[in-house]
Amino acid sequence: MAQRQLKLGANLNGVGNSISFWRHPDVPINASVSLAFYTGQARKAEEGKFDLLFIADGLFINEKSNPHFLNRFEPLTLLSALAASTGHIGLVATLSTSYSEPFTVARQFASLDHLSGGRAGWNVVTSPLEGSALNFGKGRHPDHALRYEIAEEHLAVVQGLWDSWEDGAFVGDKASGVFFDPAKLHALNHNGTHFAVQGPLNVARSKQGYPVVFQAGSSDSGKALAAKSADAIYTAHETFAEAQAFYADVKARAAAYGRNPDELLIFPGIGPIVGRTEEEAERKYREIAELVAIDQALNYLGRYFEHFDFSRFPLDEPFPDIGDLGSNSFRSTTDKIKREAKEQGLTLRQAALRASTPRSGFIGTPEKVADLIQQWFEGGAADGFNVRTVVPNGLADFVDLVVPILQERGLFRKEYESDTLRGNLGLPVPRNRYASEAIETI
Amino acid sequence: MAQRQLKLGANLNGVGNSISFWRHPDVPINASVSLAFYTGQARKAEEGKFDLLFIADGLFINEKSNPHFLNRFEPLTLLSALAASTGHIGLVATLSTSYSEPFTVARQFASLDHLSGGRAGWNVVTSPLEGSALNFGKGRHPDHALRYEIAEEHLAVVQGLWDSWEDGAFVGDKASGVFFDPAKLHALNHNGTHFAVQGPLNVARSKQGYPVVFQAGSSDSGKALAAKSADAIYTAHETFAEAQAFYADVKARAAAYGRNPDELLIFPGIGPIVGRTEEEAERKYREIAELVAIDQALNYLGRYFEHFDFSRFPLDEPFPDIGDLGSNSFRSTTDKIKREAKEQGLTLRQAALRASTPRSGFIGTPEKVADLIQQWFEGGAADGFNVRTVVPNGLADFVDLVVPILQERGLFRKEYESDTLRGNLGLPVPRNRYASEAIETI
Repeated sequence: MAQRQLKLGANLNGVGNSISFWRHPDVPINASVSLAFYTGQARKAEEGKFDLLFIADGLFINEKSNPHFLNRFEPLTLLSALAASTGHIGLVATLSTSYSEPFTVARQFASLDHLSGGRAGWNVVTSPLEGSALNFGKGRHPDHALRYEIAEEHLAVVQGLWDSWEDGAFVGDKASGVFFDPAKLHALNHNGTHFAVQGPLNVARSKQGYPVVFQAGSSDSGKALAAKSADAIYTAHETFAEAQAFYADVKARAAAYGRNPDELLIFPGIGPIVGRTEEEAERKYREIAELVAIDQALNYLGRYFEHFDFSRFPLDEPFPDIGDLGSNSFRSTTDKIKREAKEQGLTLRQAALRASTPRSGFIGTPEKVADLIQQWFEGGAADGFNVRTVVPNGLADFVDLVVPILQERGLFRKEYESDTLRGNLGLPVPRNRYASEAIETI
Repeated sequence: MAQRQLKLGANLNGVGNSISFWRHPDVPINASVSLAFYTGQARKAEEGKFDLLFIADGLFINEKSNPHFLNRFEPLTLLSALAASTGHIGLVATLSTSYSEPFTVARQFASLDHLSGGRAGWNVVTSPLEGSALNFGKGRHPDHALRYEIAEEHLAVVQGLWDSWEDGAFVGDKASGVFFDPAKLHALNHNGTHFAVQGPLNVARSKQGYPVVFQAGSSDSGKALAAKSADAIYTAHETFAEAQAFYADVKARAAAYGRNPDELLIFPGIGPIVGRTEEEAERKYREIAELVAIDQALNYLGRYFEHFDFSRFPLDEPFPDIGDLGSNSFRSTTDKIKREAKEQGLTLRQAALRASTPRSGFIGTPEKVADLIQQWFEGGAADGFNVRTVVPNGLADFVDLVVPILQERGLFRKEYESDTLRGNLGLPVPRNRYASEAIETI
């Protein structure tokens, strides 16, 4: 039996994941709105045989937002452009179920799926930022539980619309004049609590059936949604033990829904910093971390807590008690910040700097980073990794230095197995809900 | 003074504008979802120095819909992909104000504008099809007047969001750590009848300022909206006199709003059929027209009239009296069908066939088609034309045979003047509403 294969995503984010990244001399200041920049990154990831590109998103900014958030491409339009300049890599766009119409979402992802020949994916999020409601004429941002209730129904509607046309519906018989078989066209007629959508969708399924569905929340509701309906989970854990526990939890939930746990892939996000020596790797981290000013770090921290103003507290005393604040936004992140500050006795300054220039354990020589990846992958903590760029040329370093080691060890492909995202991820093509058994067994 | 220059758009529509087009041996049956097909068309149009690609759209299908409508790309994703494989041509996507969120619309078009280096355009429509409401959880499709009231507010919000960032807001000073100038960031704080949108938008303006705004309705409300807020109008008139009257009407309306009428461009849609001889052109039309079956033609006609079933009437008697039907959908089209049937004494069969395989006067030799174009352009009927493909290779015929004549006569460019759509159309970059006079005059 073939060795189980690692999966890799490249989480691209222009001027950066950390607030000071843009200040580095090697970072183009317009990277977040430069197609040339993204095309270069996409081609590098494809050279490294990555499974997918992953584009995060948000729907609210103010003057305290991360530089990358202020002026960046919208994910679906960006990935549609990259579909034209890549050939094998998957294209996963983040889009919120709290502020979108299922018909439009189903349609734009199906369109991207056809544009790319079956390489589209949707990262389902519920929009953590309270302010998002103000940009969409909603009086109030739905609370966490309601957002996940909406998300579950939204996703079900989108998947229903993706089945509007059975495979083979478009006969295209020029002689007889039959363009399609009406028996293979289906209206959804959904009438639920949050959405009423008749259908059918005006796009057929691509050869991968549905775009691949990612889910990116690590709260209980997020895990439940993923276990029930997603193909993959993007998550964030800093320690091997945490990642193992999460992995076991979510795989068990999938099994409880009657699913094959191998068909729900778990992708921890990592920000590897690779140097030819340990010292070189540490120097790369310091070059970024030292560019952060403390007032920026406080603003950045506040963003996770409903734009709370931390500057009123002393910097070098223990992280302040702020009660329940943050429970309706990035819940898993804010819980973790509060827990770590308490457990490790961090000051406000330390907590703010750690939040503003995240540093994972995946730092060091190529062998060390490959060892950690192998440990997590073989130790029940990951099916793959979503690789963020946290230092300039971080993606290129990873492709040039780490990928060959993973390939050498037989953990990662040397050539793409498929031209669809689902094919490369080893996920089955979902059966169309309207397809008759007779057709299935032919 | 330089001669006034004609503008040209290519209205691309996969398997076709007429219901039988796909049956022709030269048409790929998957054209409507083939990136290769659209890329080929886009490159041909760019070879012909066309100003723009134009993608129509719709939000409701049923089993009677035009083949192209059943399974086609969504316009914004398609044009984003084409941005990557073209360099000068404008990219105009149709999107409905009745079933979209201004924040999302502003953002996706701004993103396309950056992806393409300033070549985006938005064709503002209000969705004529009643059934659209059923795909977006609305109880009832808004009536014609209300749709235009919504459209006017929607467009104003989108344009407001496009001004969120003044030009030069992104300082990007790596040494001082100043990424942007907060004085050049503006929230819109719109609180209107149909929309409440705070902003700011999370994308800056491109070098053309705003995407170019097209408007495509010819009703009174459509003309009023265009005269007030659009850069260009896409319209449909079969006779020179009608086109002249429309042109004079809309230019006068623009002047009444205090605008320079030269900054509202009028693009009649034409479906030229070009042959090296008159006979060759007529044969090309017949090849398409003869592929239509009468039951398909009746269905097609019914689509304009709220999916009315015309098959209950005798085919070879005068077009039936159907009262006010159609007044809340494609009003200008249905008015015209009814009027022409009455004036010209058409039977139901004749009216249905004419609706299903439209035929304009722009048919004949390259010289004849160029003469008509010149007549309309110089005679106060058009600033440019939106060229539909109504016979296979229709775009290539136009580029290869008609464009050189127009260039020879000094009516049309031999090279692009600009790398933005606004630049090529000769339209000014809109001033940002927040920019101070002092900055303007520097």
